[in-house]
Amino acid sequence: MRIGVLTAGGDCPGLNAVIRSVVHRALVEHGDEVIGFEDGFKGLLEGRFRKLDLDAVSGILARGGTILGSARLERARLREACETAKDFSREYGIDALIPIGGEGTLTAARMLSEAGLPVVGVPKTIDNDISSTDRTFGFDTAVGVATEAIDRLKTTAESHQRVMVVEVMGRHAGWIALESGMAGGAHGICLPERAFDPADLVSMVEERFARGKKFAVICVAEGAHPAEGTMDYAKGAIDQFGHERFAGIGTKLAGELERRLGKEARPVILGHVQRGGTPTAYDRVLATRFGWHAVEAAHRGEFGMMTALRGTQITMVPLADAITELKRVPEDRMDEAESVF
Amino acid sequence: MRIGVLTAGGDCPGLNAVIRSVVHRALVEHGDEVIGFEDGFKGLLEGRFRKLDLDAVSGILARGGTILGSARLERARLREACETAKDFSREYGIDALIPIGGEGTLTAARMLSEAGLPVVGVPKTIDNDISSTDRTFGFDTAVGVATEAIDRLKTTAESHQRVMVVEVMGRHAGWIALESGMAGGAHGICLPERAFDPADLVSMVEERFARGKKFAVICVAEGAHPAEGTMDYAKGAIDQFGHERFAGIGTKLAGELERRLGKEARPVILGHVQRGGTPTAYDRVLATRFGWHAVEAAHRGEFGMMTALRGTQITMVPLADAITELKRVPEDRMDEAESVF
Amino acid sequence: MRIGVLTAGGDCPGLNAVIRSVVHRALVEHGDEVIGFEDGFKGLLEGRFRKLDLDAVSGILARGGTILGSARLERARLREACETAKDFSREYGIDALIPIGGEGTLTAARMLSEAGLPVVGVPKTIDNDISSTDRTFGFDTAVGVATEAIDRLKTTAESHQRVMVVEVMGRHAGWIALESGMAGGAHGICLPERAFDPADLVSMVEERFARGKKFAVICVAEGAHPAEGTMDYAKGAIDQFGHERFAGIGTKLAGELERRLGKEARPVILGHVQRGGTPTAYDRVLATRFGWHAVEAAHRGEFGMMTALRGTQITMVPLADAITELKRVPEDRMDEAESVF
Amino acid sequence: MRIGVLTAGGDCPGLNAVIRSVVHRALVEHGDEVIGFEDGFKGLLEGRFRKLDLDAVSGILARGGTILGSARLERARLREACETAKDFSREYGIDALIPIGGEGTLTAARMLSEAGLPVVGVPKTIDNDISSTDRTFGFDTAVGVATEAIDRLKTTAESHQRVMVVEVMGRHAGWIALESGMAGGAHGICLPERAFDPADLVSMVEERFARGKKFAVICVAEGAHPAEGTMDYAKGAIDQFGHERFAGIGTKLAGELERRLGKEARPVILGHVQRGGTPTAYDRVLATRFGWHAVEAAHRGEFGMMTALRGTQITMVPLADAITELKRVPEDRMDEAESVF
Repeated sequence: MRIGVLTAGGDCPGLNAVIRSVVHRALVEHGDEVIGFEDGFKGLLEGRFRKLDLDAVSGILARGGTILGSARLERARLREACETAKDFSREYGIDALIPIGGEGTLTAARMLSEAGLPVVGVPKTIDNDISSTDRTFGFDTAVGVATEAIDRLKTTAESHQRVMVVEVMGRHAGWIALESGMAGGAHGICLPERAFDPADLVSMVEERFARGKKFAVICVAEGAHPAEGTMDYAKGAIDQFGHERFAGIGTKLAGELERRLGKEARPVILGHVQRGGTPTAYDRVLATRFGWHAVEAAHRGEFGMMTALRGTQITMVPLADAITELKRVPEDRMDEAESVF
Repeated sequence: MRIGVLTAGGDCPGLNAVIRSVVHRALVEHGDEVIGFEDGFKGLLEGRFRKLDLDAVSGILARGGTILGSARLERARLREACETAKDFSREYGIDALIPIGGEGTLTAARMLSEAGLPVVGVPKTIDNDISSTDRTFGFDTAVGVATEAIDRLKTTAESHQRVMVVEVMGRHAGWIALESGMAGGAHGICLPERAFDPADLVSMVEERFARGKKFAVICVAEGAHPAEGTMDYAKGAIDQFGHERFAGIGTKLAGELERRLGKEARPVILGHVQRGGTPTAYDRVLATRFGWHAVEAAHRGEFGMMTALRGTQITMVPLADAITELKRVPEDRMDEAESVF
Repeated sequence: MRIGVLTAGGDCPGLNAVIRSVVHRALVEHGDEVIGFEDGFKGLLEGRFRKLDLDAVSGILARGGTILGSARLERARLREACETAKDFSREYGIDALIPIGGEGTLTAARMLSEAGLPVVGVPKTIDNDISSTDRTFGFDTAVGVATEAIDRLKTTAESHQRVMVVEVMGRHAGWIALESGMAGGAHGICLPERAFDPADLVSMVEERFARGKKFAVICVAEGAHPAEGTMDYAKGAIDQFGHERFAGIGTKLAGELERRLGKEARPVILGHVQRGGTPTAYDRVLATRFGWHAVEAAHRGEFGMMTALRGTQITMVPLADAITELKRVPEDRMDEAESVF
Repeated sequence: MRIGVLTAGGDCPGLNAVIRSVVHRALVEHGDEVIGFEDGFKGLLEGRFRKLDLDAVSGILARGGTILGSARLERARLREACETAKDFSREYGIDALIPIGGEGTLTAARMLSEAGLPVVGVPKTIDNDISSTDRTFGFDTAVGVATEAIDRLKTTAESHQRVMVVEVMGRHAGWIALESGMAGGAHGICLPERAFDPADLVSMVEERFARGKKFAVICVAEGAHPAEGTMDYAKGAIDQFGHERFAGIGTKLAGELERRLGKEARPVILGHVQRGGTPTAYDRVLATRFGWHAVEAAHRGEFGMMTALRGTQITMVPLADAITELKRVPEDRMDEAESVF
């Protein structure tokens, strides 16, 4: 069997572990040939690929990034791309295509599958917001990085008697904020799933100071937002370059809290450090299992499917189901976090 | 409500996170009183306890060990202990007892429950071998420590053209070896669940050397054992102090491989570093959730139960079911690890 | 002997290690009494202190922050404070005062010393910019945190084909940027000591892209600045709250590079994570040695002095010399970093 | 200029950083050509080498091991090797040879230099025992790994009320034990430089238990030894395979303490994890500076010399001086560690 593999979308610790696992399983167990397309679907469309043997994937298990490169494909080009990819796959004799990527990639994967290509998807997002799998690789690493940051900020917040607002990734779903906030013991957690009221955070901080705990750390997802009418700075804050990204909710909220509390409040925007570098053991195991099962699914002819974690098992779910809705943090998980919204 | 909490058995990263979570949830949400018994069931039997308020659990979330101390209780004393504990609980007005511990502790918990005490158990084992929960806290940390060790040993094995045998914890179940071996990319993994043949490991190493990869790392659970008749050193090796613990399977296997391969082979016995220190974010979250749900179960009057992770949810399972059989690594997980047995 | 110890100024990993070391050495070797003033000089002026015995410093070696709390003292109050401190020290019978702090604290220490108090200073700054000591504790930890961030950002920059600008601490001296940039393999390093020209960074990035390395990471000290006339955004950029701190050089430079290169450039502002949390082994050793030698100096009656590292030895230097000039990165160290300025 | 570089001796974090630095400096600044000999002096003698350009050293800064491979050369073959190397170097036009290695390698380097080869040495040892340099790269990483292990073991020792004996590397010099013991807060430190008396360790543990600290961690260098007549197990303990290495001082001492104290004592032998894997930021900076200065020395024609750290500066010292005597832990450093011997 000739298997093509590609990585698409943003960086995510564990991509290399999937690639390595696909190559190991396909070559050692099945005697397959594996080729890797460069820069995601672009490589597929432009015919840029290379053969992946055991040496090509040697030493990459623990390395961040992707040896194949990655690029986002504009949605507009998707339909056209399908035809090209189909032709290409026939020409080169691709018996199975394994795209590793997030929501956009899986949507493309589904279209390719519906167009008749033999596709087995592997889901990837540090945001953990794909609904048909319990967890995705990359998420544990991101939570680990954010938690270590909160650990460090706590001692600083305490010695400076300050409020620290840590902004972590999560535009549409607050999983990273939820779990790193919980793991780091943040005193407040703000998620996109539930609008927060700064007044609640103010009360929490004041209560803490009153009982002698003269600091607080608040963990905010980048997609968190105040309830309507509760915060002046919420809308329209544009930085000096006209870039909205440089003045996110973390910065706004720190400013708001400083103003209301009359105490120093500082934002820390973790940013891209959350999505790069060595994956945790958890992510390496999950990524390796996903790669292994994607190859097995291909050999069983189970196309149009995607690997997923359910409990302790890896199962295959239809690509069609995978991307229908975003997995958001449910109410009961928010309650567990005992957070202030 | 007056809740008593205790930790029993071996050290396990996340114990303090459970204690903190119990206290937070009980005090802040329910206005309960929480007391902590010292040194496990001993403290319960001897009436040694202290009140746990928010200050008592401040700053312990990320700390290894247990602020309550821990001790093993001999099984022989268990039945007698039940009566004492029952009397004691009545006298002190304990409305719910939350023991956090492994198989032995949960067995005791079950006996206490059957004797009429209001018990909610929280499972704990770095070995991950309790069957009614998908995972236990402490396990992720142990796997992380072992994986980092394998990462480091790989570069050394490579530069010395050596075989390294890493012995990790897991007397009856090989979960740590399985996952750290997989995450670290060990070239062979030996588990208690399946007897290994040293000849297979020898072949694997020789194939590696033949294709220019002049090193190998083998990850061995302390409870792994060779198939009958396959290895001379397997039985009866007693060290110079008469302690069997100082000559485990890792050391034996390294000696055997060195003899058979005619190449340097070195054992590294990770030992107790796997069970101490700061828990990973994953373990802190799981431990925190277990504590939270144990308190809720107590308030719902669900006694004789234990917290468990099933998929992404925390559920309650009967203590009676929890400890009937050990959760061992199943065949399909061993296959995924592509290992040599 | 009765020794008073206090910590002043910003958080710095290793403060607790100094306190612990002072207590251990003073109590165990000399049978001294040690008291700790709370919140820096404030505690000294307001008579807030507590006795420090072995239990009080148990378990703090690896913990960030300071168990004594810290506060900055306004310079204006210093002279007045001297008199109060002197009276207080006489009243309470302080035979030696060990203030641990940065430039401001050491200046205060010198004034107290000149006013007749028996002072032995211990220098502290994560910025490593105190001239009379080879290194200060806290610096190694800060460099470690920044290096890990650069490691992670590299894989992300590479997979996104992006320029990343990491802003690290260092307002007046660029040591953290120098060493973390060197350790992380940043492709450009900008320090306060030498004005940079964005055009040089642009050339460097373009050369990298030309030879197929389609990403770059630039490490910028917060106090770095462009040469006059080389960058439009350099002056006067004020964020929407009027806080200059939220629009530092990292953000400005990323904007400038994105505009000039026509490629994505993203700023990552590490901020306070650099100054909190567990100190590295190096910092714990240095801090412990400083504490040990401070006690010895006190017992030898060497007052008005400060501990310092010179080569491998801890020596005592006059407080008067310690703070005359800032230790800035010299030319030859910048050359070693092969950086673009 | 054509520069040859090679790595010899045991694995040491930072080797790749030196290689990368040599290549960067030589190519970018001087337009040199750099070739790397494989497997240490073996590659030089057998003519096995490869050209090193920027791509060849891309991404290796943070990686453990050595991309060039390493091998030990028997002393007996050294003199013969000199002639071969000389001929070879002339034939291939090597204008400067940069061997990176420990005592054995530097001795060889000196012989090659005396035989007329243009040699600039770079010292390497995780043991930190080369006398003419303040520190060597690799040491900080080893201390970091050992310190993290001690951190973890402390919580386990405490929860089990145990004595833990951690054996770290250091056959002839106790630097790793000294600094990791100090950084980890070990309660006893045993070094090769001073024979210890187990009775002192017993007293220390008993005092700790008496004041309620019911655990202890003792850090032992592998080369530490008891004073004559103080410990029965000290001599002649051979394990069941006849390998002395499997029954080091850590294991012996734990057995001895358990017997004398009547309390559980457990050995943990860290072994090879100390010498592999990602170097710390400190080691990367030192290694990078060494490589940079080696190239500069070659261009200045300063042969027969070795790079060395003195205070904050990199200087060149004669190879002849470098290896005359081992740098052992001096008395005053042992005193600082407040340890029990």
